[in-house]
Amino acid sequence: MRLRLDVAYDGADFSGWAAQPGRRTVQGVLETALATVLRAPAALTCAGRTDSGVHARGQVCHLDAAEDTDPADLRRRLAGVLPTDVRVRAVAEAPAGFDARFSALWRRYAYRVCDDPAALDPLTRGHVLAWPRRLDVDAMNGASVALRGEHEFAAFCRRREGATTIRTLLDLSWRRDPDGVVVARVVADAFCHNMVRALVGALLSVGEGRRDPDWPAVVLAGGVRDPAVRVVGPHGLTLEEVGYPETGEMAARAERARATRVLRT
Amino acid sequence: MRLRLDVAYDGADFSGWAAQPGRRTVQGVLETALATVLRAPAALTCAGRTDSGVHARGQVCHLDAAEDTDPADLRRRLAGVLPTDVRVRAVAEAPAGFDARFSALWRRYAYRVCDDPAALDPLTRGHVLAWPRRLDVDAMNGASVALRGEHEFAAFCRRREGATTIRTLLDLSWRRDPDGVVVARVVADAFCHNMVRALVGALLSVGEGRRDPDWPAVVLAGGVRDPAVRVVGPHGLTLEEVGYPETGEMAARAERARATRVLRT
Repeated sequence: MRLRLDVAYDGADFSGWAAQPGRRTVQGVLETALATVLRAPAALTCAGRTDSGVHARGQVCHLDAAEDTDPADLRRRLAGVLPTDVRVRAVAEAPAGFDARFSALWRRYAYRVCDDPAALDPLTRGHVLAWPRRLDVDAMNGASVALRGEHEFAAFCRRREGATTIRTLLDLSWRRDPDGVVVARVVADAFCHNMVRALVGALLSVGEGRRDPDWPAVVLAGGVRDPAVRVVGPHGLTLEEVGYPETGEMAARAERARATRVLRT
Repeated sequence: MRLRLDVAYDGADFSGWAAQPGRRTVQGVLETALATVLRAPAALTCAGRTDSGVHARGQVCHLDAAEDTDPADLRRRLAGVLPTDVRVRAVAEAPAGFDARFSALWRRYAYRVCDDPAALDPLTRGHVLAWPRRLDVDAMNGASVALRGEHEFAAFCRRREGATTIRTLLDLSWRRDPDGVVVARVVADAFCHNMVRALVGALLSVGEGRRDPDWPAVVLAGGVRDPAVRVVGPHGLTLEEVGYPETGEMAARAERARATRVLRT
């Protein structure tokens, strides 16, 4: 029986998602809690392997468990066992063919920035980046247009041997919330390593007037990692949501996603 | 020259507002930062002396400073000197007769509760109380009606020798936010010690069905501290706003407030 788990965490005290020996990771803490509650080893697969310090409100994972597992009971018992910086908000039997990673159509992240250091709300400072200079949201939106769509994002990624860096950026847009916080909405079919934080770093340079609005597009076209692009800190970044197809489409989507990754490498 | 400072803080690592020897307090940290920036001793008076662990987004204080103090410059320099768990969001020359404590017409607090322990957002868990049982917001609103208005609140206060416990509760109402968090809005001319947290504790007992909706009014009428009322934890409580009269009314309001406190003690 495959279960879908919807997970939220405060990344501050985690060395990222992926289990590593000797480190406190989200995967490690969750798998330990699941093993305690289920009295059996548990292996999780997630939609977005977040880096150290990155948060999630809408992480999705799957887990194969015994046929008699009661999702509501598992949810309740995990709440009692898990530390408060990670929560399993929903547990449900997954539709046929569901794979948290390969069935996903898109991942949506938010990056939050407060550009007035005196006004950074102490109660939300753990997931909002303090930026010392005022940002021009219109300029950042203008510069974001050319980055949307399918591109070779090598300029904004940390290279990994044998992995494609072609991605489809479905949205990259900026707004200023009523409380003054500037928020980037970043949606893609998938992200390569450091991609959101490098895109945000390049656009903050535009927002503060240090770079022209066409600069990020020039960097993208360069096609190689540009050291002039600052990768902003992880704590402003939150994985907000993962999108999946209709119930009947899970297996087909997973097959296509696996094939694309192979073709592209 | 009297300055008005609008202050926000995360109460988690403070032993409350009021300066105490050997303890980290909001007043102590702010006065030290002000003394550094102004190169002169600084004494603050605030509108709401919050307890240990209580947060603020809208605390107001005043400070008497040298005539040539530039408010905008002071705000900017404080942002660089203060730790990130306390922020001075605004500095302005105060209107004539302004006293942060005695000119205040009302204080508004919010108390936030998540009644689904599996769903408590890890990113906001520092200022939201986790409650293990589901709450009936309508029942809590019903029970709150009889508590509004001017009453002797001794039943919900920690007694202090020679101080009145008559207060006017201008609002006490509950809502469930779109994210599921239950929020109490509590407004009064002033509060006595522990009053919000005791009122909230009594109403949570109603919300979870352990007490009848008329029980808090019975406790109020009793007029003495009732040990059956649980005082809920400080970390769900945030001072959100302080209300002041029109600019020309500051001194008159302060005079009336001082007189009321004397008459009532």
